[in-house]
Amino acid sequence: MNSRARFLAALNGAHVDRPPVWLMRQAGRYLPDYRAVRKQVSFWELCHAPELTTRVALEPLARFKLDAAIVFSDILVVPQALGLGVTFGTGEGPVIERRLTSASDLAAWQVRGAAERLGFVSQAVTHLKRALEGHYGLFGFAGAPFTLLAYCVEGGGSDDFLRARTLLHREPALAEKALATLADVTAEYLAAQCEAGADVVQLFDTWGGLLDAQTYARFCLPAIRRITTPLRKRGHRVMLFARGGQHLLPVLGEADVDGFSLDWRMDWRAARQRFPGHVLQGNLDPALLLAGAEPTRAAATQLLAQMREAEGGTRCIFNLGHGIHKDTSPEVVAALCDEVAAHG
Amino acid sequence: MNSRARFLAALNGAHVDRPPVWLMRQAGRYLPDYRAVRKQVSFWELCHAPELTTRVALEPLARFKLDAAIVFSDILVVPQALGLGVTFGTGEGPVIERRLTSASDLAAWQVRGAAERLGFVSQAVTHLKRALEGHYGLFGFAGAPFTLLAYCVEGGGSDDFLRARTLLHREPALAEKALATLADVTAEYLAAQCEAGADVVQLFDTWGGLLDAQTYARFCLPAIRRITTPLRKRGHRVMLFARGGQHLLPVLGEADVDGFSLDWRMDWRAARQRFPGHVLQGNLDPALLLAGAEPTRAAATQLLAQMREAEGGTRCIFNLGHGIHKDTSPEVVAALCDEVAAHG
Repeated sequence: MNSRARFLAALNGAHVDRPPVWLMRQAGRYLPDYRAVRKQVSFWELCHAPELTTRVALEPLARFKLDAAIVFSDILVVPQALGLGVTFGTGEGPVIERRLTSASDLAAWQVRGAAERLGFVSQAVTHLKRALEGHYGLFGFAGAPFTLLAYCVEGGGSDDFLRARTLLHREPALAEKALATLADVTAEYLAAQCEAGADVVQLFDTWGGLLDAQTYARFCLPAIRRITTPLRKRGHRVMLFARGGQHLLPVLGEADVDGFSLDWRMDWRAARQRFPGHVLQGNLDPALLLAGAEPTRAAATQLLAQMREAEGGTRCIFNLGHGIHKDTSPEVVAALCDEVAAHG
Repeated sequence: MNSRARFLAALNGAHVDRPPVWLMRQAGRYLPDYRAVRKQVSFWELCHAPELTTRVALEPLARFKLDAAIVFSDILVVPQALGLGVTFGTGEGPVIERRLTSASDLAAWQVRGAAERLGFVSQAVTHLKRALEGHYGLFGFAGAPFTLLAYCVEGGGSDDFLRARTLLHREPALAEKALATLADVTAEYLAAQCEAGADVVQLFDTWGGLLDAQTYARFCLPAIRRITTPLRKRGHRVMLFARGGQHLLPVLGEADVDGFSLDWRMDWRAARQRFPGHVLQGNLDPALLLAGAEPTRAAATQLLAQMREAEGGTRCIFNLGHGIHKDTSPEVVAALCDEVAAHG
């Protein structure tokens, strides 16, 4: 079974020899060639050069027994395309110049043409798709509406995004309008990634877990459905990663997605019990990779056994429960991928 | 019913006219007199001056219809007493000079006499107890072992405490020994707070929610029980706040505590269903207070109704699901406390 066939079979619920594997942030700072590229070009230049985005996306596939690639980009390209003035990767985290604080800020968003200004990401997908030659699965992605809103309101990173959480309760109508706007641009943007060759797209709701389930159901899920329902009607596949969203399980079924990517703290069996027909992806703790090959292999074996408990492990994608940390040793990543491959 | 009577009745499961209320970080930077005190003395000086710790602890009681006070201190006084060199409150968060990285670091901890060096906190409890004149309930507190370990390993704050999480998997024996050491000092420290007059003590596991349930059950719960079991045998009451621990509900029953303080994302009914006989405390989202009096009152009314669903609201303590944010308006806090009081 080649990697893409395994990947598509898992997505479709068909027979698999073993769950396919890829790792969030598999193309990143823990890899030497990635660091070499980043010494030569800025993050923004890298995102706009298809030969470079393909080069960094291929590096982990060449090194490790992985089954899928993900286009190299960033979730904040969407606020950038809306004209909010995003500065990437200065070490201090992203900065958004024109914060969202009022209705007039929202009125200034450059919605017209935003999807076109995001064309460089579809071009990166097209370029990577060609290089994969049908051997590997391919993910596109975008930030989920609340996560994008959180950055827009905060003006950058935060550990609690309290300004954004406050906005939902203080100006619910403004928040809903902003979420709908972000959703509609994202829907068009992800459709373009699918048409460029992505087998599936993932919505990263990195900060959705900061909200209680009632607030998530009221604000986030309607915005997510503005993206997922039209995508799925057009035959595209979409997954949702709600980081820190262990308490959101009871409402996530309303997201209208093909599957869920699970945070490392989510109990696999509880998630499978709640979503027997969805694709589930995850969810090894990235801290294990920092601890070494032995604890990583042991935890992987345990997780693979849980995956096999239903339908022989189809509708399962092996992954981490959060992105690979930059201090991770490539040797440990190799050991992890070897372990998963050995369970075929 | 005076406040302390209401507070003790709720803790004991006796009849209450309404749930008692206090707010995590109720003595803090959102209050003008607290800021005035902090202009004159450092955080560390404040902690060591009983007349000042009492002054700042009383300020919210004078302003708002609250039922309990909490001694003014910090969870990092324990690593400080162990000789790790803690610098508090420089704006950048705490710094711990002598990080825990190896067995030899642990061997250098000054365990002997640590509880005595923490005597200034019991003295603050004694001083405050006298000032309360039996009118209000009184909380003591400490950091839970893993949260303290997380700071010791990281050397300060972090958003993911990945070094500490990694240590658990890479050097489990060292981690267990450090957790047991922290637990034993904390057990003695909290017993002294109870003997000085605290009606109940709370363990703050601020970072426990970063661990999956299996890891929490293996490392954190045994260390917590080294504190809670001897305290409870001596007739003292203890509560546990596992922030971000929505996924830990299935294992928290092993903590041997009188009650749980709930994160704002925890579903009240789900927690009550799992722990029908425990005291539950929480769990309004502090973001609501930043959003204004109206959404705060509405959410408080909803939460109070959920509290009353079992046993008329005894074994419930009204609180936030996380500490008050420094930008919170005292007027909104007053509105919240008035709302709770009006439900009597």
